[in-house]
Amino acid sequence: MREGLMMDDYPLSLTRIVERAEQFSPGRRVAFRRPDGSVGHTSFGEGIARARRLASALAELGIGAGDAVATLLFNQPEHLELYFALPAMGAVLHTLNPRLHHEELSFIVNDAQDRAIIVDETLLAVFEAFHPARSFEHVIVVRAGDDPLPEGYVDFEALIASAAPMSWPAEDELRAAAMCYTSGTTGRPKGVVYSHRALALHSLMGALPDLMDISRRDVILPVVPMFHANAWGLIYTAALIGSGLVLPGPRLDAESVLDLFESERVTMSAGVPTVWMAILQALDAEPDRWDLGSITRMIVGGAAPSKGMMRGFDRHGLRLIQGWGMTETSPLGSVSRPGLELEDASEEELVDDRVRQGIACPLVEIRGRRDDGELIPWDDAAMGELEVRGPWVARAYHGGQGADKFTEDGWFRTGDVVCINALGNLRICDRSKDLIKSGGEWISSVDLENLLMSHPDVAEAAVIAMPDERWGERPLAVVVVRAGATVEADALREHLAREYAKWQLPDRFEFVSEIPRTATGKFKKTALRELFVSQTV
Amino acid sequence: MREGLMMDDYPLSLTRIVERAEQFSPGRRVAFRRPDGSVGHTSFGEGIARARRLASALAELGIGAGDAVATLLFNQPEHLELYFALPAMGAVLHTLNPRLHHEELSFIVNDAQDRAIIVDETLLAVFEAFHPARSFEHVIVVRAGDDPLPEGYVDFEALIASAAPMSWPAEDELRAAAMCYTSGTTGRPKGVVYSHRALALHSLMGALPDLMDISRRDVILPVVPMFHANAWGLIYTAALIGSGLVLPGPRLDAESVLDLFESERVTMSAGVPTVWMAILQALDAEPDRWDLGSITRMIVGGAAPSKGMMRGFDRHGLRLIQGWGMTETSPLGSVSRPGLELEDASEEELVDDRVRQGIACPLVEIRGRRDDGELIPWDDAAMGELEVRGPWVARAYHGGQGADKFTEDGWFRTGDVVCINALGNLRICDRSKDLIKSGGEWISSVDLENLLMSHPDVAEAAVIAMPDERWGERPLAVVVVRAGATVEADALREHLAREYAKWQLPDRFEFVSEIPRTATGKFKKTALRELFVSQTV
Repeated sequence: MREGLMMDDYPLSLTRIVERAEQFSPGRRVAFRRPDGSVGHTSFGEGIARARRLASALAELGIGAGDAVATLLFNQPEHLELYFALPAMGAVLHTLNPRLHHEELSFIVNDAQDRAIIVDETLLAVFEAFHPARSFEHVIVVRAGDDPLPEGYVDFEALIASAAPMSWPAEDELRAAAMCYTSGTTGRPKGVVYSHRALALHSLMGALPDLMDISRRDVILPVVPMFHANAWGLIYTAALIGSGLVLPGPRLDAESVLDLFESERVTMSAGVPTVWMAILQALDAEPDRWDLGSITRMIVGGAAPSKGMMRGFDRHGLRLIQGWGMTETSPLGSVSRPGLELEDASEEELVDDRVRQGIACPLVEIRGRRDDGELIPWDDAAMGELEVRGPWVARAYHGGQGADKFTEDGWFRTGDVVCINALGNLRICDRSKDLIKSGGEWISSVDLENLLMSHPDVAEAAVIAMPDERWGERPLAVVVVRAGATVEADALREHLAREYAKWQLPDRFEFVSEIPRTATGKFKKTALRELFVSQTV
Repeated sequence: MREGLMMDDYPLSLTRIVERAEQFSPGRRVAFRRPDGSVGHTSFGEGIARARRLASALAELGIGAGDAVATLLFNQPEHLELYFALPAMGAVLHTLNPRLHHEELSFIVNDAQDRAIIVDETLLAVFEAFHPARSFEHVIVVRAGDDPLPEGYVDFEALIASAAPMSWPAEDELRAAAMCYTSGTTGRPKGVVYSHRALALHSLMGALPDLMDISRRDVILPVVPMFHANAWGLIYTAALIGSGLVLPGPRLDAESVLDLFESERVTMSAGVPTVWMAILQALDAEPDRWDLGSITRMIVGGAAPSKGMMRGFDRHGLRLIQGWGMTETSPLGSVSRPGLELEDASEEELVDDRVRQGIACPLVEIRGRRDDGELIPWDDAAMGELEVRGPWVARAYHGGQGADKFTEDGWFRTGDVVCINALGNLRICDRSKDLIKSGGEWISSVDLENLLMSHPDVAEAAVIAMPDERWGERPLAVVVVRAGATVEADALREHLAREYAKWQLPDRFEFVSEIPRTATGKFKKTALRELFVSQTV
């Protein structure tokens, strides 16, 4: 073999990204909302100077290379400082989702062997609920007011004030930089352990024009929490590229977010569909209240947005762009943007394209596989479980759990059931566990839900599988009627029958006031299944 | 150390990029101009299918892993096929610049130990001039017509027709993928050996919004030759992203290029200032002849463009964007784009910013160093030699030549003398060997040249150092007067005196009809120095 003679040992690491921001964008603004609602401003330079002191202080507390440190924080400057400090000092940033059940959190902090935890004072109640399960060596609190801290807790600010800045240690791109647990709707949470290499590459890739299209001229407001898969990569991408950041803190209601969009001249944002739905409703109610002229696009992910939501934002001159990904994919796997081939497409064709999950990111490979092990053709009709591989995809979970999620030839099994068109554009039909397997055929619950939600009288709809002696499983639709409207099962069945064969239609329609959701905002189908199965029996 | 659990052994390789294009963009169009002037069309899919057959045929001829294969070709489909085939089969793509002197080419093909060469038939005369110096095992000719080939030469098309498609071998990201020799104005050419890792990362980075901003909606026409530092990365970036390509072949005159811009609906292009100067003249002469509405930006690099050229294109609604790089940096080192801080800048401030060399690419580090070894402050006043490091920067030359170009602590010495402003934005003042060192102070030849060329009666100007007993060196200006104009030395001295101190002004002005240029279009200052020193003596 003839070797290249380039600087191939130059590490792909988050340390390089932190130093990049410090050197090239020290003055770039970071705006943030405090718990009391007021807005403050800091900068990358200031944040990284504090991160260097924080790292020294943590090292003095005994936190060393490879040690996991948990965070129970919102999108706030202290979280940003930990995003910088922990990976750069060689430790592991472990973000916790405060919306999880305390038993899940107990399991997670023990599984990760977190040695210390940093908690926002307003989340102390959440912390206290799982605290007894884990003896943290250090509990560090970001204080919201001046009340004295309970004994044994360390003040985050006092820690920073006490220490000298750290010179970052030498890097290794294979070293763990961060951890995040999947909050699956079934099974125990599983830990994803991000390497520096994976996150550095993901940061570069995420800024591409066909992905999130991020430049030095952007001001980014991640509504997506920093405890959700690295806030979809936006934090490190902003630091690498030199974009401004706006951190909304705990207030994620539509009005608070829209106020920040306007006052901070935000150019791009990202969040889950429920967030955007609330924002759309606020805009519909007061279309002239906010000047959103600075915004050029908003990424929606975590669950599929409806055409209606996209069209709703179009009416306000705002562009919703869909991304797909998972905690296991760092998380960006694909983004849906029209290619050259849609240059002359109609508005209707464009919307059809926009609700697809899009083309896999550069360097990410995809394939679909059926139950019998065969790969599906890229004909947009065959359904199979999506498998992916690439430099920012997990190769295993922490502690070797969930080994069945990885194929023998080294692909990650996403659990999403997809069709793939001839251009490699993904369309998620369902989660494999939510598919309805009726008489040997698959029925997509997601497709039925989307069509149901396009009915003017339906606010929300979930379709679940009911056990059936003859067919194995049959679909049941759970419907929330729009406020002030009334609708009957027959009308909905008729609505669906325009696009579906008779055998694909739900046998039952149940009307409820609310569909239960998981901590990450997804329909809690396990709960629905239990509810209606027990009602049947 | 705690290791990450991501797919960190997933290779960053050009093979992945070739497979990406094959899978996701097989139908993406590649337009090309034949030597006879006609325009043809092929696609990535077709090109890669041919590349797989070509690779098998080359393997049958004995070309194996690590073997260098030379190309003497224009921007044409066969060159594209070799860009795909050679790195993916594990061999090394070695592009030759046909404009070099035959003695340089003799040296280069022997230094690289090229085992085979692929020559365009119209370049056979160039080949014959250095052929005797190297016993190639195989000479493969891309034929322009139907004339029988001289004995011993292999027909490129016959080779492809004879072979079955190759399945690419397993990759190693550290393996050499390509070679390119620097055509320095002094010293022997030195070989840069690109690794797969460096070029894969460069391909990803080059598409960023702050760099070349390349998406699946782009149609790219590289005027920059494919034998110049990977055509600035555009070929592999287009394959990775899925952009269309337009290959202009040997015809790089303004009319031919502008015709392709229009007919192929090109969205971006890239080339050296002399190319753009000719194109600007053609547009000025016939402003309404071409519909260039599809073009959104044009990259200029290889030498600094003048403000006049930028403003000239502005008048036609076309945007020239400057990049800086070297063969040793793969080649993109920086691109000049306005940041958030220039949001409210005047047109004049924006042009001042655009003629700077810009912010270093993400993951590229820069520093400036004085003769005495001290690093310069980022104050835009201190001058120092630019040193860089990063994942796509050379760590050595082939055969260990030019070891003095690399510092002990692992940085590459560019030979460019720069100022750096507080934002990390570069301004190249000179090549270190072209600086005039007068009485212990540095005078930038480039700055004097630019100011001279802003005089309405000056077409071109070069400033060189003349040996001086008292001061060490003193500046001499070589001027080409604009056609139809007349100007005297005193008027030019007065023009310069508005911005320069007396001791910085040239002592002599020499008027010539033409300034000699190197094969890559740069002023041949060594030749000028020899000419005028001998005249002085």
